[in-house]
Amino acid sequence: MRIGIVGGTGKQGSGLAVRWSRAGHTIALGSRDPAKARARAAELAGEGHAIEGGDNAWAAREGEVVVLTVPYEAHAETLRGIVEAAAGKVVVDVTVPLKPPKVSRVQLPAGQAAALEAQALLGASTPVVATLHHVSSTHLADPSHVIECDVLVAADDARAKATVIALLRDLGLRALDAGPLVNAIALESLTPVLIHLNRVYKSQGAGIVFTDLSGADQR
Amino acid sequence: MRIGIVGGTGKQGSGLAVRWSRAGHTIALGSRDPAKARARAAELAGEGHAIEGGDNAWAAREGEVVVLTVPYEAHAETLRGIVEAAAGKVVVDVTVPLKPPKVSRVQLPAGQAAALEAQALLGASTPVVATLHHVSSTHLADPSHVIECDVLVAADDARAKATVIALLRDLGLRALDAGPLVNAIALESLTPVLIHLNRVYKSQGAGIVFTDLSGADQR
Repeated sequence: MRIGIVGGTGKQGSGLAVRWSRAGHTIALGSRDPAKARARAAELAGEGHAIEGGDNAWAAREGEVVVLTVPYEAHAETLRGIVEAAAGKVVVDVTVPLKPPKVSRVQLPAGQAAALEAQALLGASTPVVATLHHVSSTHLADPSHVIECDVLVAADDARAKATVIALLRDLGLRALDAGPLVNAIALESLTPVLIHLNRVYKSQGAGIVFTDLSGADQR
Repeated sequence: MRIGIVGGTGKQGSGLAVRWSRAGHTIALGSRDPAKARARAAELAGEGHAIEGGDNAWAAREGEVVVLTVPYEAHAETLRGIVEAAAGKVVVDVTVPLKPPKVSRVQLPAGQAAALEAQALLGASTPVVATLHHVSSTHLADPSHVIECDVLVAADDARAKATVIALLRDLGLRALDAGPLVNAIALESLTPVLIHLNRVYKSQGAGIVFTDLSGADQR
């Protein structure tokens, strides 16, 4: 599948690009600065990955599925820039509404969740899927690291949710149906708690695994 | 230690009472209906546990630490009834603000978290500690069940938090410092997600375990 990654030059976007490319997908890597995205894509393509770069609207147009990996402060503006390019597609929002410097403290955004704000901005015909809030960017960016973390997926649109769950399994992750999009409130607000755990217990990337879920598909 | 359990005749309160009693604590089990609490306490005492029953204000007065296990609909009213009895003590709030029938959907309360509402009702000199939102009541109530679930603990008062973490370890649980009380928003809102997972994957009680936390004390 062709996946557009908007704001994809950071650790999270590039880590996803490399891992999806290894699974046979092709990637359109976007950035506000298209030269930066092209340089990053060329670097990754040199390592053998099917990754091209361009601006964010281009990445959103190119992707059959559009993945948004931007800091919360750029969230609304970035979304406004891709409304038309992403129209009708599945948009995967991995944004956590952190407000530095207090990133280990839950601070709910005005719309209660970034993903709910994204859905409001994009309109009902562009289904938003919230996921990947708990996988450490550091672990994601290291292609040799085996990620020990379940992934929760919240969405209202069942078809969009199934598409994204399949893409997450291609990353080698156990992807779990976490309910309707409003449950992104829980998913996003757990990330400051993970940041706090990392600080207190000196971890590089605490993850979460759900127990007693024998009914869930294994990785 | 003497532990008062307010609203303690349900699965969660009774399960905690039995497990803490086994660890050497004595329990004052409270209910809105003191006769019911006395009957339940007598039943458990008959099995060899140091558990007495009475009304909720009595349980709050008796306990050095006060644990609140009531449904959210009774939360504010129950707290108003124990403000004086619990004054200055550590109050452990395990309440999840579920609003039936949609219990697998995050529905934030007016104060964003039940524990924040409890803190506002009790006043600053009575520190609230939020925890135990993710341990299945069914598992808790079965004394033979080994619970495979980490426990997150959110509080502003460091001393109260340490007291409660020690009590949770007495239950055989790995208790983790989850940050300030405001992080109860994340803890409480994760429970509807667990309920959703239980439904989708046909589990009796999905739990949560944090990975890559080698710095945390093991059980």
